[in-house]
Amino acid sequence: MPYDRLDRDVAMMKSAGLNVVRMGESTWSLWEREDGQFDYAWMDRAVDAMGKAGIKVILGTPTYSIPAWMARQHPEILASDQGGRIGSYGMRQNMDTDSPAYRYYAERLIRHIVAHYKDNPTVIGWQIDNETSSYNADNPDVFIGFQHYLEKKFVTPEALSKAWFLNYWGQNIHTWEDLPIRDGAQSTGYKLEWTRWSQLRVTGFLRWQTALVREMASSRQLVTTDFGGVMRRDVNEEEVADSLDIAAVNVYHGTQDHFDGSMQSLQEDFTRSLKHSNFLITETNAQSTDWSSAFQFPPYDGQLREDVYTHLSNGADMVEYWPWASIAANQETYWKGVLSHDLEPNRAYAEVSRTGQELQKIGQHLVGLRIHNQVAILWSRDSANAIGFMPFTSDAPQPWAPGKEIASYDSLVEQIHHSLYELNVGTDFVFPESSDFSQYKLLIVPALYIANEALLQRIADFVKNGGHVVMTFKSGFANDDSAVRWVRAPGPLRAAAGFSYQEFSNLERPLSLKDDPFHAGDDNRVKYWAEFLIPEHAKAIAFYDHPFFGRWPAITENDYGAGTLLYEGTYLSDKLQTAVLRGTLDKLGLTGDDQQLPASVHVQHGVNRLGKQLHYYFNYSGAPVAFTYAGPEGKDLLTGERLTPHSRVTIKSWDLMILESPQ
Amino acid sequence: MPYDRLDRDVAMMKSAGLNVVRMGESTWSLWEREDGQFDYAWMDRAVDAMGKAGIKVILGTPTYSIPAWMARQHPEILASDQGGRIGSYGMRQNMDTDSPAYRYYAERLIRHIVAHYKDNPTVIGWQIDNETSSYNADNPDVFIGFQHYLEKKFVTPEALSKAWFLNYWGQNIHTWEDLPIRDGAQSTGYKLEWTRWSQLRVTGFLRWQTALVREMASSRQLVTTDFGGVMRRDVNEEEVADSLDIAAVNVYHGTQDHFDGSMQSLQEDFTRSLKHSNFLITETNAQSTDWSSAFQFPPYDGQLREDVYTHLSNGADMVEYWPWASIAANQETYWKGVLSHDLEPNRAYAEVSRTGQELQKIGQHLVGLRIHNQVAILWSRDSANAIGFMPFTSDAPQPWAPGKEIASYDSLVEQIHHSLYELNVGTDFVFPESSDFSQYKLLIVPALYIANEALLQRIADFVKNGGHVVMTFKSGFANDDSAVRWVRAPGPLRAAAGFSYQEFSNLERPLSLKDDPFHAGDDNRVKYWAEFLIPEHAKAIAFYDHPFFGRWPAITENDYGAGTLLYEGTYLSDKLQTAVLRGTLDKLGLTGDDQQLPASVHVQHGVNRLGKQLHYYFNYSGAPVAFTYAGPEGKDLLTGERLTPHSRVTIKSWDLMILESPQ
Amino acid sequence: MPYDRLDRDVAMMKSAGLNVVRMGESTWSLWEREDGQFDYAWMDRAVDAMGKAGIKVILGTPTYSIPAWMARQHPEILASDQGGRIGSYGMRQNMDTDSPAYRYYAERLIRHIVAHYKDNPTVIGWQIDNETSSYNADNPDVFIGFQHYLEKKFVTPEALSKAWFLNYWGQNIHTWEDLPIRDGAQSTGYKLEWTRWSQLRVTGFLRWQTALVREMASSRQLVTTDFGGVMRRDVNEEEVADSLDIAAVNVYHGTQDHFDGSMQSLQEDFTRSLKHSNFLITETNAQSTDWSSAFQFPPYDGQLREDVYTHLSNGADMVEYWPWASIAANQETYWKGVLSHDLEPNRAYAEVSRTGQELQKIGQHLVGLRIHNQVAILWSRDSANAIGFMPFTSDAPQPWAPGKEIASYDSLVEQIHHSLYELNVGTDFVFPESSDFSQYKLLIVPALYIANEALLQRIADFVKNGGHVVMTFKSGFANDDSAVRWVRAPGPLRAAAGFSYQEFSNLERPLSLKDDPFHAGDDNRVKYWAEFLIPEHAKAIAFYDHPFFGRWPAITENDYGAGTLLYEGTYLSDKLQTAVLRGTLDKLGLTGDDQQLPASVHVQHGVNRLGKQLHYYFNYSGAPVAFTYAGPEGKDLLTGERLTPHSRVTIKSWDLMILESPQ
Repeated sequence: MPYDRLDRDVAMMKSAGLNVVRMGESTWSLWEREDGQFDYAWMDRAVDAMGKAGIKVILGTPTYSIPAWMARQHPEILASDQGGRIGSYGMRQNMDTDSPAYRYYAERLIRHIVAHYKDNPTVIGWQIDNETSSYNADNPDVFIGFQHYLEKKFVTPEALSKAWFLNYWGQNIHTWEDLPIRDGAQSTGYKLEWTRWSQLRVTGFLRWQTALVREMASSRQLVTTDFGGVMRRDVNEEEVADSLDIAAVNVYHGTQDHFDGSMQSLQEDFTRSLKHSNFLITETNAQSTDWSSAFQFPPYDGQLREDVYTHLSNGADMVEYWPWASIAANQETYWKGVLSHDLEPNRAYAEVSRTGQELQKIGQHLVGLRIHNQVAILWSRDSANAIGFMPFTSDAPQPWAPGKEIASYDSLVEQIHHSLYELNVGTDFVFPESSDFSQYKLLIVPALYIANEALLQRIADFVKNGGHVVMTFKSGFANDDSAVRWVRAPGPLRAAAGFSYQEFSNLERPLSLKDDPFHAGDDNRVKYWAEFLIPEHAKAIAFYDHPFFGRWPAITENDYGAGTLLYEGTYLSDKLQTAVLRGTLDKLGLTGDDQQLPASVHVQHGVNRLGKQLHYYFNYSGAPVAFTYAGPEGKDLLTGERLTPHSRVTIKSWDLMILESPQ
Repeated sequence: MPYDRLDRDVAMMKSAGLNVVRMGESTWSLWEREDGQFDYAWMDRAVDAMGKAGIKVILGTPTYSIPAWMARQHPEILASDQGGRIGSYGMRQNMDTDSPAYRYYAERLIRHIVAHYKDNPTVIGWQIDNETSSYNADNPDVFIGFQHYLEKKFVTPEALSKAWFLNYWGQNIHTWEDLPIRDGAQSTGYKLEWTRWSQLRVTGFLRWQTALVREMASSRQLVTTDFGGVMRRDVNEEEVADSLDIAAVNVYHGTQDHFDGSMQSLQEDFTRSLKHSNFLITETNAQSTDWSSAFQFPPYDGQLREDVYTHLSNGADMVEYWPWASIAANQETYWKGVLSHDLEPNRAYAEVSRTGQELQKIGQHLVGLRIHNQVAILWSRDSANAIGFMPFTSDAPQPWAPGKEIASYDSLVEQIHHSLYELNVGTDFVFPESSDFSQYKLLIVPALYIANEALLQRIADFVKNGGHVVMTFKSGFANDDSAVRWVRAPGPLRAAAGFSYQEFSNLERPLSLKDDPFHAGDDNRVKYWAEFLIPEHAKAIAFYDHPFFGRWPAITENDYGAGTLLYEGTYLSDKLQTAVLRGTLDKLGLTGDDQQLPASVHVQHGVNRLGKQLHYYFNYSGAPVAFTYAGPEGKDLLTGERLTPHSRVTIKSWDLMILESPQ
Repeated sequence: MPYDRLDRDVAMMKSAGLNVVRMGESTWSLWEREDGQFDYAWMDRAVDAMGKAGIKVILGTPTYSIPAWMARQHPEILASDQGGRIGSYGMRQNMDTDSPAYRYYAERLIRHIVAHYKDNPTVIGWQIDNETSSYNADNPDVFIGFQHYLEKKFVTPEALSKAWFLNYWGQNIHTWEDLPIRDGAQSTGYKLEWTRWSQLRVTGFLRWQTALVREMASSRQLVTTDFGGVMRRDVNEEEVADSLDIAAVNVYHGTQDHFDGSMQSLQEDFTRSLKHSNFLITETNAQSTDWSSAFQFPPYDGQLREDVYTHLSNGADMVEYWPWASIAANQETYWKGVLSHDLEPNRAYAEVSRTGQELQKIGQHLVGLRIHNQVAILWSRDSANAIGFMPFTSDAPQPWAPGKEIASYDSLVEQIHHSLYELNVGTDFVFPESSDFSQYKLLIVPALYIANEALLQRIADFVKNGGHVVMTFKSGFANDDSAVRWVRAPGPLRAAAGFSYQEFSNLERPLSLKDDPFHAGDDNRVKYWAEFLIPEHAKAIAFYDHPFFGRWPAITENDYGAGTLLYEGTYLSDKLQTAVLRGTLDKLGLTGDDQQLPASVHVQHGVNRLGKQLHYYFNYSGAPVAFTYAGPEGKDLLTGERLTPHSRVTIKSWDLMILESPQ
C-alpha cells in the first residue's frame, strides 16, 4: 500500500460483508528482511485489525517467491536447466524446491511463522505455498533425483532401455550414470517419465510443507493450498489434494461478452472431484486480470455478483478475490483488485458489497451444497502429456494448410465438458487411479492415449457390468511407458469396443459425415484425425463422405455385456460432439426439463445442509430471459418469491434465481 | 573500393555539385591496423583530393565499430548481458562503451586523429561516433554503475524498495548488493530506471568524446553526432544535443509509392526542436536501403531531387547520402549508394547532379531557413518506455482477436503528427523538461503515462493561462517511478481535465462513436482502450455506441481558466484523430488556405537568411496536380517564374515550387 | 522389436518378394554396449536368417548416432557453436565428425564390423554413415580447421581482407588469430566460405569412411551412402558421389492428394546426374512419415505400387522402405513402416507384396534403365547459399505486405523443374564444375548469383557454339567471394545476354506483363524482383505494365553466335514460367506427342538392358484416364497386352502402363 490505511481497508471489508481474508503468501522479504532476522509486527497489526472486525484470516506460507538476499547468497536455488543456462532473479516461482538451501530457509521460516500464529484465534487456517508447480527446474539435484527414481522404478538400466525402446538410434544405457539429461532427450518414455517425476517433486514438496505446518499448527486450523488452475501438466492435483484438509483453486475466467460460467464449471467440477467434496475459491476475477495493459476487461454490471453464485453452485464454500486493492506497480499493476488504484469505493466494490450483504442473509442456505452427478469424464494427465509430445495437429505452416487450427487433449476435454455444460448435465471427473466407475451411468473417455492394462480392464468391466462409455480416438493406444502396443489397436479394449484398426490418417481438410446423420448442417464436419476402424461386433453409426476414407466408419457403437461403448474415431465439430452426447444421454434417460431451457439459462442442482434441494437458474446474457419454470415448487432465496411449477419467470440480464425446495 | 579510383570519384562528386563529404566513421582498422600502429596516409590522400576539388570534409571518429584485434585482445569489451551470454564479434555497435579498455583505445585513437587533422583547412568538422545507442550492454561494469547511480538517486535501499513497491512478491532489498541484475527484473520501476541509466550512459559517452575532440580540435571545426533516427528508447537526444554545435540525423524514409514527405517531417521536426535551430542530414536514401535483397525500392524519377528540398524545407542545412558508391560485399551490399556497384554514372547520379547544380544557383536562398510553428507535441521518452513495458495492445493470439493490430505510444505520436502533416500545419516537439509552453497556441499531449507533479502542473498552468491542450488516454496515470498514482485518475490533471475516472477497459473490437459526430463513415471507430470518464466540469463531445460503454464519454472538453483541455479517452481512428484536431485548429484560427490544397500537395513556410518568406509547395504524387495558388506574390526560385495570388498553377509529378516573397 | 519375431519377419519379407535389406545404421550401442566391448551375435543372427531366405544385406556403419556412454565420456564430441552453447545428448546427428575422439571410436568400430562381415556372402555392400551433414558444428577444432583452410586458400590475411571487403566497418585482419568466430560474422564472403568449409568437412568425413571400409571390405561389396534428400546446403553431393560405387538417396514425397511423382523426379533427376548413372533408393515412404502425429497421410490404394515404378522410371535400381515395421516408441513412432505397430499383415504389406511379386517377373526388363535427356538445369549450391544470406523476399511483416509469400533459389529451381515435369520433358542437372554442356540442347540457368569468370565464359561459349540458354535474374551478379562485380551486370555475360543493367527493384506487389503476351490470364503476373534491363543487342520479349517499371523489359532474348540466350529479369508466375519454357522447347523441336497427353498422365522414356525402349505412362490421379496412345507398338509388361499406335487406352486410378518396344 502506498500509505497506511489499514483501518480504512478493514472497515470497507467489514462493511462489504467480507468475513475471511487470505494474507501473507507473497511476503518472505517482509517476514525475514535479512537472513535470520524475523519480524512479525507488520502482520500482527493486520491480523489484529481483522480480528477486531470479526474477519478471519488464512495465512499463506510465503515460500513461492524468495527474497533477493537469498538469490544472491544461494544462486543455486534458482531453477535452471542442465544445459548451463543460469536462472536470474526477478520472477516469482523460479526456484528448485528440492534445493537443500531452499528447504532449510523455508523450514526455518515456516516454523517461526506457524509457532507465532498457531494460537491466534483470528487465524483459522494455512495456505501452503501458492500455485506451486515444477518451474521446469532441472538443477543437478533434480536430475540426480530423477536417476534415483528411475533406479527404483526400473531396477536395471537394461530394463529401462527395453521399456523405452532405446535400441532406437542406438541409445540404450548399461549404467545409470549414462542417463542423458532432459534437455536433448527425444525418447517418448523419458519425456513422459520426466513429467511424472516433476509431479512427484511438486507433491513431495507440498506434503513436506503440509506435514511441517500440521506439526506446528493448532488442530483447529485448516491446511490447504491453492491450485493455479487445475489440469496442469506438472502438478498431480489428485495426489496433492490427498494430503490437504480441503482443496482450493484460483479460477480466472472470461468476462464481458465471454462470461458464461463454463470455465468456472470446468475448473470447479474438476476440483470438486479431487476429494469428492466441496472446496475453496482462493482467487477469482475482481476488476481485471492482466500482466500487461492489453487484456483489461472489467465485468459488466451484474457479472461480479453472478460470478459468486456461480462458484457456490459448483460446490465452493468460500469465494476470495485477488487482490483486495489494485497494486500501484510491478507485474500485476493491471491485475486489478476490488478497489481501483485510487483506493476509493467504486463500481466493483458496490457490487461486491451487495453480494456480501445478500450472503450474510442467505449464506447458510447455500454453503455445503452436495452435488450428485451421473456422468463423469476420465481425465488422464499422462495422456495429456504424451499427446503433447506427439500432437495430432500442428501449427507448422504447410503448403496445403496455412493457419491451421490447433487441437489437443485439452481442447477435446474442454469440448466434451462444454457440450455437457451447454446441455445442463452435471459432470464429475474421474482419474486413472479411480478404482470404481460404477456410481456413474455414463463415463466419457477422451483420447486415453496412455493407459495400463488394469485401467483398460476396469473400463471394459464397467461396460460389461452395464455401464455406458463414450470414448474417442487414440484411446488404449500406448502403454504406461508411452510405447505403442504391439497388438491391434485399441489393444485390451478391442472386445469392449467391438472393432480393431491398423491404420489412421490425419485429415488435411475437414470431412463431412455421410448423409449428415446428426443434422448438423454447416457443422457436419470432422477434423484432424481418422482411424480406419474395422468393425468386428460394433455397428457403424456414421461414415466419412470421401472416396478413400468412406469405407471406414467414423463412429461406432458396441453392445458389450450389459453396457455399450460408443467410439469416435475422429475429432468431431462442437455441434456433432453435442449431438452424439445428447443422443447417448437421451437413451440413458439422463435428459428432461433442463434440456428445454433457453440457451442463455444454465441450471445447477444440489442439496444444502438443511437437507433441502437448491436449484440455481443463471441468465448468462445481457438481455432478460423468460421461460416456463418446470422445477418443483420452491422459494427464490434472493427475492423471497415463491415459484410454482409451470409458472412463467423472467431473469434479468446477468442475474439469477436460487430456488429452495423440500428434499 | 574494389580498385583505386579516388580521382574519378572526386571528379564525379565535384561535377555533381557536391561540396561536403563525411568520411572515416567506420574505419578503425584502417587507422590502427594493429594495437598502437597508426596510419594516416590512406586518409590524407582522400582529404587532399577533396581539398583540391574544393570539397570540404567532416571526419567521423571511428569508434562505433571496433577492429577484430581489439575484440580478440579484450573480449570483455563486447556488450553482453549479465546472464552469461557471451558477445561475439562481427556486428558493429556491439561494445560496452563504458569499458575502460575500450575508452583507453578510443581516447588514444581520437587524440591521434584530431591532432593530425585539426589544422587541415579541408576538415571543417567532426562527427562523434555514429548512431550511438546503449547496445543493450549489461556488462558487469555497467551493472555496478547502475547500482551506484541508484545509490545516489535513492540514498537508501529502503527508499528504492518503497518507490518501486518491492514488497510486491517479497522482493524488497536492504543492502545495495542484493539488487538483482536486469535480466529477470519484473519491477516496472526497475525497468524504467534502467532505460534512464542506458540513456545516461549514451549521453555520458558522447559528452566525453565531444569534450575530447574539442580539447584537441581547432575552434573553427564544428562538432556533431548523427542520430540513427530520433525518438529512440535508449538515447536522450535532447541531452545529447545540448553538448553539440549542431544536431544531425540520419533519415531513411519510404520511396516509390510510399514517398510522401511525412517521415522526413516527423524526424526533422523533432531534430529541429532539439536545439530550436537548424540541423544536418548526415544520411538519407540514395538508391535503396536494405540489409537483405528484399527491400530494394529505388526512387521513382524525381523523388531523389524532391527529397533534398523536402529536407531543406524542414530546416536542414546540409543533405548527405550514405554511401557514395554501392559496396560490393557484406551487410550493406544492397544499401545502395548514389553510384551502383558498377561505379558508373547512372539514373541516381544524374538526378543528384541536377539537384546539386540547382543548389549551386539557389542554395543561398534556401539555407538557414527559420520556421515558426504554433503547435507542439509533447514527447515523453519515459512514457514511451513505460507503456512499452505495459502495452495497451498485444499480438498474443486470443480466441476472440486473431491477428490483432498493434498500437503503441509511437503509433499514437505518429498518428497525431501525421494528421497535422496532412493538414499542412507545422509542428514542433517539446519535452518533459521544457519549462515553458507559452510560445505555442496548441499543445498536444499523447499518452503522457509517466509524469511528475511539476510537469503536470506546468500543463495545467498552460491551460489556465489561455493555452489549448489536446490530450489522450493514460496521461497523468503514473509517477516518475512508474507507480500508478493512488488518487483518482488523471491525478493532478483532474481540475484542468474536468473529469475523473476509476476504471478503464480494453476494447475487444473497435466501437463506433454514437451518431458519428465527426462524419467519419466507415472510419467512425475507436479502438484498443476506453477510460470510463466521469465528467465533473468537462462536457462530453462524443459517446461510445455500446450498451455498457455507452454511459461514459469517449471525448471530453473542459474550459479551465483561460484555456481548454480536450481529452481523448480512447484510441481514435486516423480519420477521427484528424477530424478532432482539425476542429480544434479551426477554433484557434490556425487554419486557412493551406488546408484547401489538393491532397497530394504539401506546403512548408519559413523565412530565409535574406529575410524573405519561402513557401515550399510539394507534389508528392506520380501525377501532375493543378490548383489555385493562394499565397502572396512571389518568385519560383526553381524556374524564375513569378506567381501572383489566385493564379492557376500546375506542379508536375514528384516536383515542387519554391516561392520566395517579401517578408 | 518389442519381442523376438525374426523368423516371422524374414518369412513375411520373402513372401513379399523383398530381396535386399539394409540394416545396422542406427545401432552403435548394440555393437558396442560399453567402451570397447563388441558384440556381433545379435546381427549375425539377423544376417544368417536373411541369408537363409535368400535376402541380401547392405550393412550400415552406425556412426551417425553415438551411444550415450560416448557422449558422457567425451562431451566434446557433441556439436556446439563457438558462443559457449553446450550440446546435449538425445538427438542423433549431433556430433563434430572431425573430433579426434569421435574418429578414434568410429574407426575402431568400423574396422571391427567390416572385418567381421567382409567374407559373409549375404552382405553385398556397405552404407557409409546415414544422411550425413555438417550438423552446424562449430567446435574449436572445426574453427581452427577453418582458419587453416583459409590460410591455404588466401595465403595472407590481407588477401582475405581484400577479397571479403573487410575494410567495411573496419574489420580487416592482419593476423590469422584475429579471424572472428562464425557466430556473429556478417561478412558475406565469410558466410559463403563457411558453407564450403562445412561441405568439405562432410566430404572429407565420408571419403575417410569410404577408404576405411574399402581397405577392409571385400571387393565384391559395394560402397554407398544415402543422401538425406539432395540439394542440401552443407553437403556437396557431387563431390561425395565421386568416391562412391553408386549414389543412393532417401526420397520422401507427398501422398494422398499430393502424390504426383514430381518430388521423386526432382530428387532423382538430381541424384542420377551426380554420377551420370543409376542409383539406389535407400528410403522412401511406406505408410507415413512424421516426427509427430500431425502429418500422417498413408497412401491411397495403388500409390505405394505406383511409387515403386516411379522410382524405377527415374533410374533407380533398388527401392527400399524405412522402416520395415513401425517402431513402438521415440521420435519416429509415427514414421510408419510397411507393417503397422501390430506387426501383422496389412493394407500396405499387401500392396508391397503385389509389387514385389510383379517385379520378380518383370524386374529384369526394368532394371538398368538408361535415360538420355536434352535439357539440363545448372544447379549452384554457392548461389543457393549466398542468396539465402541476402534473400530477395522476406517474411518480415511490412505495413504494405503482410503475410508475403517466400521465394528463394530453391523455389525457383523447383518451379523450373516442375514446369518441365508437367511438360513431360526429361531433365538432367549439371553443376558449376561441369566442364561441358554441349550434350544438351537447352541449358537452364536459375539465379546463378555466384559464379567465377570461367563458368560464365563456359556458358557464353555454349551459346556461341549453338546452345540455347534460359537464364533468370541475379545470374552473373557476384564473384566467388560473394562480392558484387564492379562492372555493369550481368558482368561477363553481357555480350551473350545482349543487355546490361545498373538498377533493380523489389516488387512490392505483383505486376502484370503488358498485353498478356503469354495468354496467362489471372496468372499473368511477375513478382518479387525486377531488373532494369537495358537491351544492347537483345530484343525485348515482354514488358511490365507499370508507369515506372514499364520502360524496361521483363524478358529478353538475344541471338549470340549460333545460339540464343533468353533472360527473365523477374520472378515469373508458375504459368508464365511454363509458357516461356514451352515456347523455347517448341522452337528447339523438343516437343511432340508427349505434350498432348492429359494433365494427370506423366511419361518417362529410356532404354533397358535388353536394348529395348521402355515407355512408362503413369496416371497420377484418383480417376481413370483415357487417351489415344501415340507411341510405338509395344507390349505392356504389367498386363502382357500389346499396344499399337493410335489405339485408345485407359489407365486406372493410381496405375500405370510400361510399354516395351524394340530399340
